[in-house]
Amino acid sequence: MNDCIFCKIVNKQIPAYFVYENDNIVAFLDINPVNPGHTLVVPKEHHIDLLETPDEVLSDMLTRTKKIAAAVIKAVKADGFNVGINTKPAAGQVIFHTHLHIIPRFSTDGLKHWPSKKLERPEMDKVREAVKKLL
Amino acid sequence: MNDCIFCKIVNKQIPAYFVYENDNIVAFLDINPVNPGHTLVVPKEHHIDLLETPDEVLSDMLTRTKKIAAAVIKAVKADGFNVGINTKPAAGQVIFHTHLHIIPRFSTDGLKHWPSKKLERPEMDKVREAVKKLL
Repeated sequence: MNDCIFCKIVNKQIPAYFVYENDNIVAFLDINPVNPGHTLVVPKEHHIDLLETPDEVLSDMLTRTKKIAAAVIKAVKADGFNVGINTKPAAGQVIFHTHLHIIPRFSTDGLKHWPSKKLERPEMDKVREAVKKLL
Repeated sequence: MNDCIFCKIVNKQIPAYFVYENDNIVAFLDINPVNPGHTLVVPKEHHIDLLETPDEVLSDMLTRTKKIAAAVIKAVKADGFNVGINTKPAAGQVIFHTHLHIIPRFSTDGLKHWPSKKLERPEMDKVREAVKKLL
């Protein structure tokens, strides 16, 4: 994909702070980190998002993420980490080449999680039935 | 695990809004959803977090998540979704049985993402070297 920045990084046409590479994926530091050590795990093949990514690639992504995240949190002395995959612009996806964020977290970083709502039982039942029908 | 609420849900000792089940995982609606359709994908075996979860379980989790998320966003007519796995209390983990969040997103939901920082190159290099040494 000519204009994909992640394809260019994978192909070494653009430099990146690589931390890991195997046959299927690369991992490099996000240049706009939420916290130090913020790392992206990226399949080498161009797939636009999670929904378009083959199962065998996804399997490798999450098992490798476990190992990479363990190294990242040790390296930056973090207290934990979030894994995130944003799919579609409404979810904050900006680069349309599948990628997974590893965000190191510190007890003192002050980052807030989204608030939860309360749905009544009839609405929960309705959602559940709609999802089940599609699976 | 006697006191684990997710083990009790898996074992059907506590009710839940199940949407999917196979030999390795279950998926059910989060009772405190960020948005309607917020779903948890949970391994049946008790593992406290992502770092402790075996590779074969993680593989199934993410490939299944792809299929479940596709159904969820269709069911609630969402515009996208976030996948999230919080690991350790500093990262917002509250229940210590591995679970993955599927959060449907709507263009109009107003949820904000965490701001990014700018790290200078020497600090990025230092982090990269520390991570690479551990991988």
